Amino acid sequence: MNMSTNEIGVVRRNVARADRAATDRLAGFGVATVHEAMGRVGLMKPYLRPIYPGAQACGTAVTVLLHPGDNWMMHVVAEQIREGDVVVAALSADCSDGFFGDLLATSFRARGARGLVIDAGVRDVRDLTAMGFPVWSKAVSARGTVKATLGSVNIPVICAGTLVNPGDVVLADDDGVVVVPAADAAKTADAAAAREANEADKRRRLAAGEIGLDLYKMREALEKAGLKYLD
Amino acid sequence: MNMSTNEIGVVRRNVARADRAATDRLAGFGVATVHEAMGRVGLMKPYLRPIYPGAQACGTAVTVLLHPGDNWMMHVVAEQIREGDVVVAALSADCSDGFFGDLLATSFRARGARGLVIDAGVRDVRDLTAMGFPVWSKAVSARGTVKATLGSVNIPVICAGTLVNPGDVVLADDDGVVVVPAADAAKTADAAAAREANEADKRRRLAAGEIGLDLYKMREALEKAGLKYLD
Amino acid sequence: MNMSTNEIGVVRRNVARADRAATDRLAGFGVATVHEAMGRVGLMKPYLRPIYPGAQACGTAVTVLLHPGDNWMMHVVAEQIREGDVVVAALSADCSDGFFGDLLATSFRARGARGLVIDAGVRDVRDLTAMGFPVWSKAVSARGTVKATLGSVNIPVICAGTLVNPGDVVLADDDGVVVVPAADAAKTADAAAAREANEADKRRRLAAGEIGLDLYKMREALEKAGLKYLD
Amino acid sequence: MNMSTNEIGVVRRNVARADRAATDRLAGFGVATVHEAMGRVGLMKPYLRPIYPGAQACGTAVTVLLHPGDNWMMHVVAEQIREGDVVVAALSADCSDGFFGDLLATSFRARGARGLVIDAGVRDVRDLTAMGFPVWSKAVSARGTVKATLGSVNIPVICAGTLVNPGDVVLADDDGVVVVPAADAAKTADAAAAREANEADKRRRLAAGEIGLDLYKMREALEKAGLKYLD
Amino acid sequence: MNMSTNEIGVVRRNVARADRAATDRLAGFGVATVHEAMGRVGLMKPYLRPIYPGAQACGTAVTVLLHPGDNWMMHVVAEQIREGDVVVAALSADCSDGFFGDLLATSFRARGARGLVIDAGVRDVRDLTAMGFPVWSKAVSARGTVKATLGSVNIPVICAGTLVNPGDVVLADDDGVVVVPAADAAKTADAAAAREANEADKRRRLAAGEIGLDLYKMREALEKAGLKYLD
Amino acid sequence: MNMSTNEIGVVRRNVARADRAATDRLAGFGVATVHEAMGRVGLMKPYLRPIYPGAQACGTAVTVLLHPGDNWMMHVVAEQIREGDVVVAALSADCSDGFFGDLLATSFRARGARGLVIDAGVRDVRDLTAMGFPVWSKAVSARGTVKATLGSVNIPVICAGTLVNPGDVVLADDDGVVVVPAADAAKTADAAAAREANEADKRRRLAAGEIGLDLYKMREALEKAGLKYLD
Repeated sequence: MNMSTNEIGVVRRNVARADRAATDRLAGFGVATVHEAMGRVGLMKPYLRPIYPGAQACGTAVTVLLHPGDNWMMHVVAEQIREGDVVVAALSADCSDGFFGDLLATSFRARGARGLVIDAGVRDVRDLTAMGFPVWSKAVSARGTVKATLGSVNIPVICAGTLVNPGDVVLADDDGVVVVPAADAAKTADAAAAREANEADKRRRLAAGEIGLDLYKMREALEKAGLKYLD
Repeated sequence: MNMSTNEIGVVRRNVARADRAATDRLAGFGVATVHEAMGRVGLMKPYLRPIYPGAQACGTAVTVLLHPGDNWMMHVVAEQIREGDVVVAALSADCSDGFFGDLLATSFRARGARGLVIDAGVRDVRDLTAMGFPVWSKAVSARGTVKATLGSVNIPVICAGTLVNPGDVVLADDDGVVVVPAADAAKTADAAAAREANEADKRRRLAAGEIGLDLYKMREALEKAGLKYLD
Repeated sequence: MNMSTNEIGVVRRNVARADRAATDRLAGFGVATVHEAMGRVGLMKPYLRPIYPGAQACGTAVTVLLHPGDNWMMHVVAEQIREGDVVVAALSADCSDGFFGDLLATSFRARGARGLVIDAGVRDVRDLTAMGFPVWSKAVSARGTVKATLGSVNIPVICAGTLVNPGDVVLADDDGVVVVPAADAAKTADAAAAREANEADKRRRLAAGEIGLDLYKMREALEKAGLKYLD
Repeated sequence: MNMSTNEIGVVRRNVARADRAATDRLAGFGVATVHEAMGRVGLMKPYLRPIYPGAQACGTAVTVLLHPGDNWMMHVVAEQIREGDVVVAALSADCSDGFFGDLLATSFRARGARGLVIDAGVRDVRDLTAMGFPVWSKAVSARGTVKATLGSVNIPVICAGTLVNPGDVVLADDDGVVVVPAADAAKTADAAAAREANEADKRRRLAAGEIGLDLYKMREALEKAGLKYLD
Repeated sequence: MNMSTNEIGVVRRNVARADRAATDRLAGFGVATVHEAMGRVGLMKPYLRPIYPGAQACGTAVTVLLHPGDNWMMHVVAEQIREGDVVVAALSADCSDGFFGDLLATSFRARGARGLVIDAGVRDVRDLTAMGFPVWSKAVSARGTVKATLGSVNIPVICAGTLVNPGDVVLADDDGVVVVPAADAAKTADAAAAREANEADKRRRLAAGEIGLDLYKMREALEKAGLKYLD
Repeated sequence: MNMSTNEIGVVRRNVARADRAATDRLAGFGVATVHEAMGRVGLMKPYLRPIYPGAQACGTAVTVLLHPGDNWMMHVVAEQIREGDVVVAALSADCSDGFFGDLLATSFRARGARGLVIDAGVRDVRDLTAMGFPVWSKAVSARGTVKATLGSVNIPVICAGTLVNPGDVVLADDDGVVVVPAADAAKTADAAAAREANEADKRRRLAAGEIGLDLYKMREALEKAGLKYLD
């Protein structure tokens, strides 16, 4: 694929999705774990928040570039959704209008979407919550949009400060949204699993009152850095 | 009425409220639906948020203009509340202090208020939630206020960017707050009903997998605008 | 104690905590009540929010000064926690990264901590909610931190705009966070109790429809200030 | 006039402007002085800033309501400008795009405009500065706009939190923007003049080292309020 | 080149720069003109501002990815600067610290840099202004940084919401910053020239009092859209 | 002194100022240099900005705690100013009103003040600029204030996130504001001088094209940290 984040008015139909099995394995981890497993990269900015507590989604990205106040392309992207996708909607400029509500959610779900990540606002949040359709947005706003200008579908987009290529894995939960490049899905799932395997034992020891200073053997490094204890 | 948003130190006692039946019909719709039915106008800015999920209120506006850090006029407006009103509190300058808590809510409710919309902060949110007294505010803050300077009651005010005349209908839910001019209440309720009548069929068709592109017949307009599909 | 908010690289082990009985009496009041009882001071800025509704904590402060993107000192402060403490984490510069998650919460709880107040971000909020470990933060973010630079423990810190000395009482609920100087704990609890004793009667009278204007005898002052009633 | 802030798609051609002589008298005062002379009301929010230091403008308002990302109506309002007007541009939702640049400024000036107040962004600020065309905006942004949707001209608008009726006096300088209702222009100029007459003597006495506490006779009130001096 | 925005710890030495002649032609246009000539894309977010009025820069991008509070890589990128470059500094998370001051500016200039675009803070702005070294930043802050963690040089970065590939043309002035993909430099310069050729005549006609409604032949479209004129 | 940041209604008359000679030596350095010389602490948050480019001030702090919308205490603090002081005004809650203008500046200057640092807004900025009276504020606003509630003078305050004790040295320039504890004035001036002595030689070498990587001998540490160079 050779598309820029600047292309306007194109819809790419055939997108290579990340491996399904690797994607589904990633669904079993938290965003924080996966972000650490990738070397502490790939997170969207924390102003994106789930519309209800406990929202969770993992799938392959179909992307859409929208213009402020115009949700026309949300209908175009609906047709490109396949089972297991998460829609990632980027904006060409800051906007908090409500680009998405219960009718679009009904359609997205019918097409197989597992959720929506949008760098703008959404509405009908009570209905979306009742449907259990997970959305991460930067605002909730009843303000409606027009259908007048072209954006693009399945081009690379920048959403909440992070580059998303169509087909990448998008994982989202209460802690935020992380993007795993399609090619890295399997190895990231492995790294996340390794990371988590470590945690059960640590949690048990910490719960028993052991101190991280000892568990992680930090005392020497702290002393070397010059930490002084006073009484 | 011939009052400006600038008048200080006046309380208007007799306010013509929007028609009660029309107001109550509006209560049956969502904020997004009513905002669209009005031609996409009348919304307050989306930084106003309900203090608990699922909050809903619809009533006729009694308005109050407050100064930063001073909630004296909240006691004055309490006396002007009638059954079915929603209090709309505007500020003469930005402030996030907690102007309202459970004692005022007890009083407002006893006077017949259905809720509060305030362009500032509130406190005692756990109690307000337990009471089921709905509030839309721009902040939650324990910071208290003094009772020292005069504002006004039942003058036109600008709340979260929107002009509210006393007697207008104020409708609020999870998606935000919309103001319907008193004279437009009935026709807006009609338009909202017409809009909603359309939606059940659409929802059914979208749920069955039909695409908005076909349902709304957008394909020709998109092609004319120059949309290109790539494989 | 003679430490400044600027000291870097020190850990004070022996901190005089506020009186336990007075601290526990304060736990019975809301933040708004205590803030008023102190003369309307001591509140942290309202951008600090609980990570789940209904969070409540009251304890003696152990403080930690962190640098952006670095949570090393969170492990150092863990060792200084005693039963009944609340950890107060300040930042040397603005940062919304996730400095704290379920492993640290497990450790803090095992050490006796009743909660965390942090002028930055936290993560694993679903787990923290499930654990019932209360946190007030300015952000939720999955973004992890490094362990590379020294801060300090149990020095005076400025958290969300408020000075906190180690050993002060920290009380937090849905309305925000208030700090009571250790020496004032008992008298503040007394003042809060006196304040609350008044409220039950007021609430009953307001619920019965009495107006605050009469209850608080405000009519004369309002008239003197020039308030005019119009019909 | 009987127009609401919600009307879309209308242009009112005949607007009663504030008295020219009174308007020009107001031009001789600062925004702070006029705002005080009105009883401390009428100011736009302080996020509106001049695009260059020393910008100053005073004139009668022609208003325009714009939609985000669309400056079509700026061309419509240009035709309604008369000698001595200031254009006041409000937005139906938050937007920082650059709605105005040197070509429109050339046109506005040719039509007699004395400046622009806009609740959005502008561009070509170097050219505008070179022209000496004063603008107060909430952003500078090179981002361009389309010409696709209707707004309105010469309806009441809310700009930066303040209601502006067409024909009102708009006064702007380094300190911000104040709106004087057309009917109040003359009496406000009188009040401003009275206020300023007082200031020369005060300035002289303060410059000589006299204290405001004595000049304004505040000592008694401060003592009564409980102020304590400690050594 | 096949690098992601996520790579940490790499420095690419050989970067294909945009054509020098095309880059220098672009230097003759304003940011707004070039952004329009590209089809209204490529702009960084408007929160980036020049540190002094009249700042102007155009060159080929050398990019650097920094971590909050750590400017170590600024020294690494200095070595990769060639005559005619503009340094583009992106951050892995939001930070307003002062990453750059007069010593680095001296070094950058000596290496041939024409300016700096940084999604963070800078300091020594009085010296930078005296030197005439142009910088676009999101903050001015005296707060210093450490030199402890690796970022990368000459990888694709996201700066103020826009993807920048090393070698792209970066043009910046009072209106903001625009990025022209290296491959598009010549054609964009052509389009900007064509656009500007049109403007002189328009400016002359507008200055003579002609209305944009006539000059751009908008009246019919406005009427068709439903615009109504009222007296 | 044993005062808290919470005391309301007190004025301390006798404040031990930092040594005059040390204070004046500090005036010769930039804020960035002094902040580094102190070990990278003591800075106020960067949202405080000078009202004109090139503003510079250094003096001993007289502090005042104000309430939102009320500048009464500005007149009280005026009397406590001595030759060589800088007034530091803190707010009990966020507010951007204009607390200070040309009359107060005239008085402050007559009393010997060298400038004002205020965590709120100021007005009359054109006059203040003409007077050359330097101010660092978080906003410019024409909005006036009342004189109704007591704050305090010469108590410890938190201004823009930093604790200031009366008598501390306050140094401010284009880069921001730094606070030097009175007891540290002399040694900080020494450290700043040492720091600056180093810079002339560095600047000369960097200007000659030497790279910081060599000048600061960073290459080995970078390699050890794992930095890889690619062609």
